[in-house]
Amino acid sequence: MAFPHATNSIDNHRMARSRVSADPVLNELNTMPLADVFRDSLPLPAHLDPNLEAALRHVLRNPGSMVRPRMVLDVSTAYGMDAGAANSLAIALEYFHTASLIFDDLPCMDNALQRRGAPCVHVAFGETSAILAALALINRAYALVWQALSRCPVDRQPQVMAYLEHRLGVDGLLNGQSLDLHYSTLPHSRETTERIAQGKTVSLIRLTLILPAMLGGAPAREIQLLERIAFCWGLGYQIVDDLKDVLQSVDETGKTAARDVLLDRPNIAAAIGVPGAVERLCRLMRLGDLALGRLLVKRPTLYFLGKLRSDLQGELSRVTEDACELSMRARS
Amino acid sequence: MAFPHATNSIDNHRMARSRVSADPVLNELNTMPLADVFRDSLPLPAHLDPNLEAALRHVLRNPGSMVRPRMVLDVSTAYGMDAGAANSLAIALEYFHTASLIFDDLPCMDNALQRRGAPCVHVAFGETSAILAALALINRAYALVWQALSRCPVDRQPQVMAYLEHRLGVDGLLNGQSLDLHYSTLPHSRETTERIAQGKTVSLIRLTLILPAMLGGAPAREIQLLERIAFCWGLGYQIVDDLKDVLQSVDETGKTAARDVLLDRPNIAAAIGVPGAVERLCRLMRLGDLALGRLLVKRPTLYFLGKLRSDLQGELSRVTEDACELSMRARS
Repeated sequence: MAFPHATNSIDNHRMARSRVSADPVLNELNTMPLADVFRDSLPLPAHLDPNLEAALRHVLRNPGSMVRPRMVLDVSTAYGMDAGAANSLAIALEYFHTASLIFDDLPCMDNALQRRGAPCVHVAFGETSAILAALALINRAYALVWQALSRCPVDRQPQVMAYLEHRLGVDGLLNGQSLDLHYSTLPHSRETTERIAQGKTVSLIRLTLILPAMLGGAPAREIQLLERIAFCWGLGYQIVDDLKDVLQSVDETGKTAARDVLLDRPNIAAAIGVPGAVERLCRLMRLGDLALGRLLVKRPTLYFLGKLRSDLQGELSRVTEDACELSMRARS
Repeated sequence: MAFPHATNSIDNHRMARSRVSADPVLNELNTMPLADVFRDSLPLPAHLDPNLEAALRHVLRNPGSMVRPRMVLDVSTAYGMDAGAANSLAIALEYFHTASLIFDDLPCMDNALQRRGAPCVHVAFGETSAILAALALINRAYALVWQALSRCPVDRQPQVMAYLEHRLGVDGLLNGQSLDLHYSTLPHSRETTERIAQGKTVSLIRLTLILPAMLGGAPAREIQLLERIAFCWGLGYQIVDDLKDVLQSVDETGKTAARDVLLDRPNIAAAIGVPGAVERLCRLMRLGDLALGRLLVKRPTLYFLGKLRSDLQGELSRVTEDACELSMRARS
């Protein structure tokens, strides 16, 4: 997953102040730092099995960069969405994301050991508790989405629910995850690697940008431009990650031993070569800029997207420099 | 899970005819047999990863007894609930139930090999595809619940969503599952075994009876009586199952080697003895009858619950006879 890391502390952003929320938990959390809201938005009952409780506390006390909920709150503000609904949606998407990471890390999937600077949930508490904790996050996330929906005009609700189902389900995240884990059986082409990135990486970025816009009543044309931006930047960040993996693994002899290649993991730079990947990245950057320019004319309150854009541009410049240096070294 | 098996063919019940549904898939399914609706309510996109597709087709083509969706449709009819909403809710609950079985069967949980007369999903298609298939069912189930909600009066919706979250989440099904899997570390008492059965078995029966009643606008007193019935019968069926496990394992010498005991699985008859379990079952039966009598006075259209009651009474009579026979054999 290649979404940018937070450049600020996770505590810099606070939940939007709102009118009384439908959920008593979120009610008290309206002005708390995001990491605290992440921790406190899944109340654990007194009679909970201690094994599941320990796993859930571990998850809730180790938040990620919170870049997604921050983005949800910013887009919500830009579209004048109800603040209570924005808070619920922001935490819901972070819970979905966190659950997907817990599943990804399982021994039958990526078999990871560490996540967010701590042991993976299944390493610390066993596979059973990891799976049940992820399901608890998902159950709470749907309830939070529903709370967000219920605070917005009824006519926007069917579109939002259909979009959520589409991006999380067999058309989106789940398909990306399945393709990713069966990559060794698939053609190692640009098409395959991009389909995987679209499912795994782009789906959640789309949800982050599109759902608050839909709930805030964004016109169809703006949704379309946000879709294009999510696609270009989501895929762009994935290509940056793939390029880094390949470039950092080049040794003194010029031979590569990229981690993704060794593990037979999808990597666009490995599939089509470094120059092709750089070219694709530049093209996505240009397409993204075009869409962003058009969008900001229509909705100047989305100016903060420029920050995400310049972060990506910075990454692009760095990998391009590394690629040039590598190319010169190979020629000399 | 000890809910009664269907006594009729799964094809005897057809989906309720309704006005045009919000979901184009359910629209065409309004008069199809339930097993076909179960199969067709999760449309698989053309570009789906073949591994995930194969796992999902296997799940969708091997339905269970469909006793839950049948019950949802019957309760919905009794409360005059919108037929389209009833159809969505019926399939949603069966998808939740099926997903919970796929997780239950995983090697890290019950490590089962067979389910519904076919190999378990993880046995046939691997753990990864089993987990992703279960998540696809859950994603679709929430969308179907939302469709059901959106066809019912707005003022009933918050209660329904809160109830669903409560019964599926850390207060209900997930807690029961976690306690169940850690039973060996817990006191082997009636309290523990009943808490596990309440979480694992009773939660889904509650959802089956209560959600259509809530969405159909049942008064609070009727919801309360349905809650009591779900508790008594859900727990009752679990005790019947536990008694059968213990009674069937008694060999000629009178020594028991119950499967649950050998595997250190929760079993109330093992925890408090056969006579205590029979007594508890009879008491639950009486309490259930009391609640059912009061409910039928208020809502005669729920008469079909009598069938579920007599099935349980039949089971009770059989295990009581077996227990008496065992007791006499022990004395002679």
